[in-house]
Amino acid sequence: MELAITLNKNLPEPLHQQLYEQLRQTILNGRLTPGERIPSTRFLAKSLSISRFTVTTSYEQLLSEGYLETVKGRGTFVCQQIPDNLIDSNPIEIIEKINPLPIKLSKYGNTLANIKNVPRIAEPELQINFRYGTPALSEFPIKIWRRLLSHYCNANLNWLDYSTEPSGYQPLRKAIAHYLTRSRAVNCEPEQILITNGTQQALDLILRLLIEPGETIAIENPGYLSARIIFETQGSQIVPISVDNSGLVVQELANFKDNIIRLVYVTPSHQFPTGAILSLPRRLELLSWAQQTGGLIIEDDYDSEFRYGEKPIPALQGLDKSDSVLYIGTFSKVLFPSLRIGYLVLPKSLVAIFTRAKWLCDRHLPVLEQQVLAEFIESGHLERHLRKMRSIYDQRRQVLVKVLKKHFGKRATILGEKAGIHIMVGFKSDLSDEEIIQSATKVGIGMMSANPHYLANHPKGEFIFGYGDLTETQLTEGIRRLAQIILCS
Amino acid sequence: MELAITLNKNLPEPLHQQLYEQLRQTILNGRLTPGERIPSTRFLAKSLSISRFTVTTSYEQLLSEGYLETVKGRGTFVCQQIPDNLIDSNPIEIIEKINPLPIKLSKYGNTLANIKNVPRIAEPELQINFRYGTPALSEFPIKIWRRLLSHYCNANLNWLDYSTEPSGYQPLRKAIAHYLTRSRAVNCEPEQILITNGTQQALDLILRLLIEPGETIAIENPGYLSARIIFETQGSQIVPISVDNSGLVVQELANFKDNIIRLVYVTPSHQFPTGAILSLPRRLELLSWAQQTGGLIIEDDYDSEFRYGEKPIPALQGLDKSDSVLYIGTFSKVLFPSLRIGYLVLPKSLVAIFTRAKWLCDRHLPVLEQQVLAEFIESGHLERHLRKMRSIYDQRRQVLVKVLKKHFGKRATILGEKAGIHIMVGFKSDLSDEEIIQSATKVGIGMMSANPHYLANHPKGEFIFGYGDLTETQLTEGIRRLAQIILCS
Repeated sequence: MELAITLNKNLPEPLHQQLYEQLRQTILNGRLTPGERIPSTRFLAKSLSISRFTVTTSYEQLLSEGYLETVKGRGTFVCQQIPDNLIDSNPIEIIEKINPLPIKLSKYGNTLANIKNVPRIAEPELQINFRYGTPALSEFPIKIWRRLLSHYCNANLNWLDYSTEPSGYQPLRKAIAHYLTRSRAVNCEPEQILITNGTQQALDLILRLLIEPGETIAIENPGYLSARIIFETQGSQIVPISVDNSGLVVQELANFKDNIIRLVYVTPSHQFPTGAILSLPRRLELLSWAQQTGGLIIEDDYDSEFRYGEKPIPALQGLDKSDSVLYIGTFSKVLFPSLRIGYLVLPKSLVAIFTRAKWLCDRHLPVLEQQVLAEFIESGHLERHLRKMRSIYDQRRQVLVKVLKKHFGKRATILGEKAGIHIMVGFKSDLSDEEIIQSATKVGIGMMSANPHYLANHPKGEFIFGYGDLTETQLTEGIRRLAQIILCS
Repeated sequence: MELAITLNKNLPEPLHQQLYEQLRQTILNGRLTPGERIPSTRFLAKSLSISRFTVTTSYEQLLSEGYLETVKGRGTFVCQQIPDNLIDSNPIEIIEKINPLPIKLSKYGNTLANIKNVPRIAEPELQINFRYGTPALSEFPIKIWRRLLSHYCNANLNWLDYSTEPSGYQPLRKAIAHYLTRSRAVNCEPEQILITNGTQQALDLILRLLIEPGETIAIENPGYLSARIIFETQGSQIVPISVDNSGLVVQELANFKDNIIRLVYVTPSHQFPTGAILSLPRRLELLSWAQQTGGLIIEDDYDSEFRYGEKPIPALQGLDKSDSVLYIGTFSKVLFPSLRIGYLVLPKSLVAIFTRAKWLCDRHLPVLEQQVLAEFIESGHLERHLRKMRSIYDQRRQVLVKVLKKHFGKRATILGEKAGIHIMVGFKSDLSDEEIIQSATKVGIGMMSANPHYLANHPKGEFIFGYGDLTETQLTEGIRRLAQIILCS
């Protein structure tokens, strides 16, 4: 049996802990089913080229926690008693199980098939869902959008043809460059902007064009899982760098002397998921690292538009003097996710090759929506919408923090409430994350553990609370129900 | 100087011919500029690991044709007298020159940077442009489209959120499956359909997931250049298979005994660019090849909707019993290109991994357009539009063929007029393709040589004539002007 386990000796977590975690996930996501026999310690040790002691240590932990059971003389099996509803109840799961295929996959395909945690897309219908990343959809000015769509649809028919601008509709790139320069201190001209199908495609193109499989990428720990999966799938070596109150602990980059770090992926405006804002000294330190080593920086600025009472710190891109920063932005949070429009601000030397790659991979984005978005920005609708949303989110955020403090007091630690549309909360509780999620689901509450976003030093009791699309009543009621679960356990 | 020349000993064309062709293209697309010194024969022979005689033969041909000149005692140079307007006048050119980069590219990035012929996107404004691939945009029922957009934009706001269907909006997949089963004898259920950003993304995903760099892909010769570039960029070995009146000469697949052919890319309904229709015996032969070797087939059905008086032959996919066929379709030709919606019909075993890859690469397509398209198909607008367009294209095609015959008689051979929205024409002329294109541009006529679509046995005087978006008056006048150029030379 192939178990698709990848251990990484560069991680600070000991190998037996990594093995334990991966086996546990394999059981929880159902790829190992109850009653299924697992490999002998001797076999697994050999196939992973690790010591048998490491395997035994992991197995013992899983046995003691009831994930595995031994049947004398027959071997070790996945426990029959694992409650079915625990399986797949993790908020992160595979999209669909990839069964053994009759058709041979490429290395990329194989790695993708074996990725354990693809953030899930379909969720159960829940009354109050604290998932992250969804803006307040009902507040979107749909009538203006509809009017613009209708206008551009009819204006003339030239837009129906292939675009001659694979990097994006020129007036849109101009509007974005103008907006970024003004509001984010990003230093760019329209020609440096590549319009992409959201952040995912921007990341995918960067990896394909600039990083060779096997090269090393540093990520925040915890950090954005969907980015990590792109890096993993394309065969990158990944090293986790700690995050504290000032964001990425830049000096840790020097710890990895054996690996040349080609790229650092950061979310400086509102670190995902902790919400820390990367301090100015750290920003300068990171840029100086890039300049000294020739390394690159991806600055993922996914929701910096929402800040509450904090003075903005200039984007890394705007501080950069050595063309080391690839800046990514998206309209998924400020407008709506199904628009699928994001953008990449590129050093000038990379514009031509990225444009060519975009043309090769899928030509260009649909043109109509690009026209509508350009007009939406240029005629001031975007800034008006942002002002309105800042005030709505600020209020929701305050309500959420207030009810959390009221119910939990010192039993909850709140992080990252100064920006964005989610916060992170650490609970003191004897319940496991899975138990909390499971009980919450039963009372109609959707919860997301921060755990899968950690590559090392997995915590317990840390959850991400998206509040963008929840009303004050929902926020209050949601936390009330949650308090009953966590505090009464 | 690095010249980025790739010679392939597997091609039937002799090496000196390949080298000649690539050097010539490098001069024409401006990567080697007039007056620039080219490497010595000794140096180039050594760096390409070929005999010096091969290099000398190519250089001599280029010298005799006036592309190169020698300066005694100084070396060989690109000729100063190459007229500037010949440079970059080829209808196929690089998007932008990729200059040497300060940032290291991946292997993929490097290969892409060195691709010589990326089909061009920006074209000069011409009165009558015979470019292929553009449908009759002014005939598109824009009012219906606009009404549907307006309706779905307002219906409810659920569509604004991330889609829970990365493989595509379910009603759209259902509508496409239904349409394909009925009109193309494709054998599929909605679950097998993956909605993609056009044909390009479908091809890109297939290559990434199923083909490892270095593996061999067979393509039609001539064949669709944009597909070939995707294969080349991802590091595939490519072998050309001839095309005759019955389409791909399947038996030639057996000639490549040294390479295991993993994949064959074909355009059976209307071979691009020759227009041949793959005969039923050949289809069965190709499927039997796949069954015997375990090879895969990409069936690119880019414009099969338009047939003139020919009985349709079932799609390869519908005849396949062994899950060897990946069927690609697009709405770029039947509706409009900037919609950016295509689809892939997958063997069931591949659905999960392709869905996961789509989710990872760019999540999903914009949802609004998918809703509109689903309704457009389901309420019969697509079939009505197709009926109307078939009759319009049929008439345009007849006019084009008639005026070609009238002016050129036996000096023009017309191919592929039974389907699609382009034909291929071979002219008997002493002028080179470039000379014809250049003279045509001067009188406001856009021409596309078939030459770049050949990987081997490059012809002379073969052109592709797209007629979809040209009126009968434009077609008549365009050919009249062309006759003056070609016949009066």
